[in-house]
Amino acid sequence: MSKNAKIRDEARAITAKPPAVILCEPQLGENIGTAARAMANFGLVDLRIVNPRDGWPSEKARAAASRADHVIDHVQVFDSVEAAIADLQFVYATTARSREVPKPVRGPDEAAHKAVELGEKGGATGYLFGRERWGLNNEEVALADEIVTLPVDPDFASLNIAQAVLVCAYEWRKTAGSGALPFILSKDEHPPAKKDDVLRLFEHLESSLDNVNFFRPPERRPHMVRTLRNIFQKAELSAQEVRTLRGVIASLEKRETRPRKERSSSDDET
Amino acid sequence: MSKNAKIRDEARAITAKPPAVILCEPQLGENIGTAARAMANFGLVDLRIVNPRDGWPSEKARAAASRADHVIDHVQVFDSVEAAIADLQFVYATTARSREVPKPVRGPDEAAHKAVELGEKGGATGYLFGRERWGLNNEEVALADEIVTLPVDPDFASLNIAQAVLVCAYEWRKTAGSGALPFILSKDEHPPAKKDDVLRLFEHLESSLDNVNFFRPPERRPHMVRTLRNIFQKAELSAQEVRTLRGVIASLEKRETRPRKERSSSDDET
Repeated sequence: MSKNAKIRDEARAITAKPPAVILCEPQLGENIGTAARAMANFGLVDLRIVNPRDGWPSEKARAAASRADHVIDHVQVFDSVEAAIADLQFVYATTARSREVPKPVRGPDEAAHKAVELGEKGGATGYLFGRERWGLNNEEVALADEIVTLPVDPDFASLNIAQAVLVCAYEWRKTAGSGALPFILSKDEHPPAKKDDVLRLFEHLESSLDNVNFFRPPERRPHMVRTLRNIFQKAELSAQEVRTLRGVIASLEKRETRPRKERSSSDDET
Repeated sequence: MSKNAKIRDEARAITAKPPAVILCEPQLGENIGTAARAMANFGLVDLRIVNPRDGWPSEKARAAASRADHVIDHVQVFDSVEAAIADLQFVYATTARSREVPKPVRGPDEAAHKAVELGEKGGATGYLFGRERWGLNNEEVALADEIVTLPVDPDFASLNIAQAVLVCAYEWRKTAGSGALPFILSKDEHPPAKKDDVLRLFEHLESSLDNVNFFRPPERRPHMVRTLRNIFQKAELSAQEVRTLRGVIASLEKRETRPRKERSSSDDET
């Protein structure tokens, strides 16, 4: 639980109204359930299905939804796309192929921006997804405002409905939450070392190496010192890490002999 | 075929070397296959598995991969994460929860930028994913350079491996291809109307409405004219659309009686 306790409030605080997801004549209950699960991961809850082939409710859908019961329990069933989108103010139609419907075509990221913008003002938006086998027909696409398509490899475009829902939902939440992640690397727990401490680490290391004649020939010393310092600068050492490294150098200097699980052939550390 | 012929070359032209995907001790062949399919959609081809529970090859994986045989056929199997990432130069470890491993935490979009940057120079990168049940252990995370986590709703975080692969692969390709979509709305096919044609449409409409005393009271006319003009300005009419609307207005003006499938009660169009 302690690890989960570090979840950041920013990752929870979404104010925009999430979009509805409309599945047009889905054939497999499993796909409905997987779509519900994908939605729930990103905070979407309003799932609507039009003429599901195998009817509703669906035990296969509930099983595939895993813990997303709150989505499955509130699925609305409609007998037409028109009815399913009646209360929405902006609808995206997802298609994999170009259509003879002259609507703007957006990627999921661009679509998310408009959906979030409207959602921030309480507007009702939706993403419309087509049938497993052949997506949406042109009349259904025409009911929407704009088209969304994913930037797939055109030579291998075979996303299923739930995968398309996942990516659209991901982009929506990323935009709505300004990219807030559930957790980050906390600088409070790992404050960077002060430059003075880093410099003393360098001087410690360099004097140790001087003591063992590491810098040969002597004219190479400046270059190698810069190389070594750069390595540790890149590591962006925390204060704790500097202390750890100084302990490492001190131990090597003293050539302490400690019991080791697998002794190497000699203790030659010059 | 004509629809697919409009696929844009930009959507194919990825020059960055795609990242490897490493699955650590995957349990279900189905998940391996679904991950392979997700990869193929976004142009990733290098799938590596470490100690798959049910061994390899796997017919369940191949079946779940759908058409991604080119990925399944080239899966490499390793007995340790170290071996699986040995030739890679930058590795992301995906985790759902905070770890006691002080590494930078990135969203998939940010991670994609670095992976693409390295890949543009031919660098070998990889994304490491953990076990279905409990992901990666801290030692495995420590083998990676940075952590990737998805901006999920922390109160319902239940993405499976293949879904995490999908989102990371999507972001990679989106970045590598600069967001190029397989198709867009072609302005060549639907050139915007010239403002002169739009103005003549407005004047046609407004004179038709004057003829039927639409603007009542007269002092409301300027406001309503602005409202109507704004509606059609928002529609960003193409030249063809302007012509279509002018035909609509002309027909209504003449009150042509045409046979209609379902006649309304009267022809009252005043």
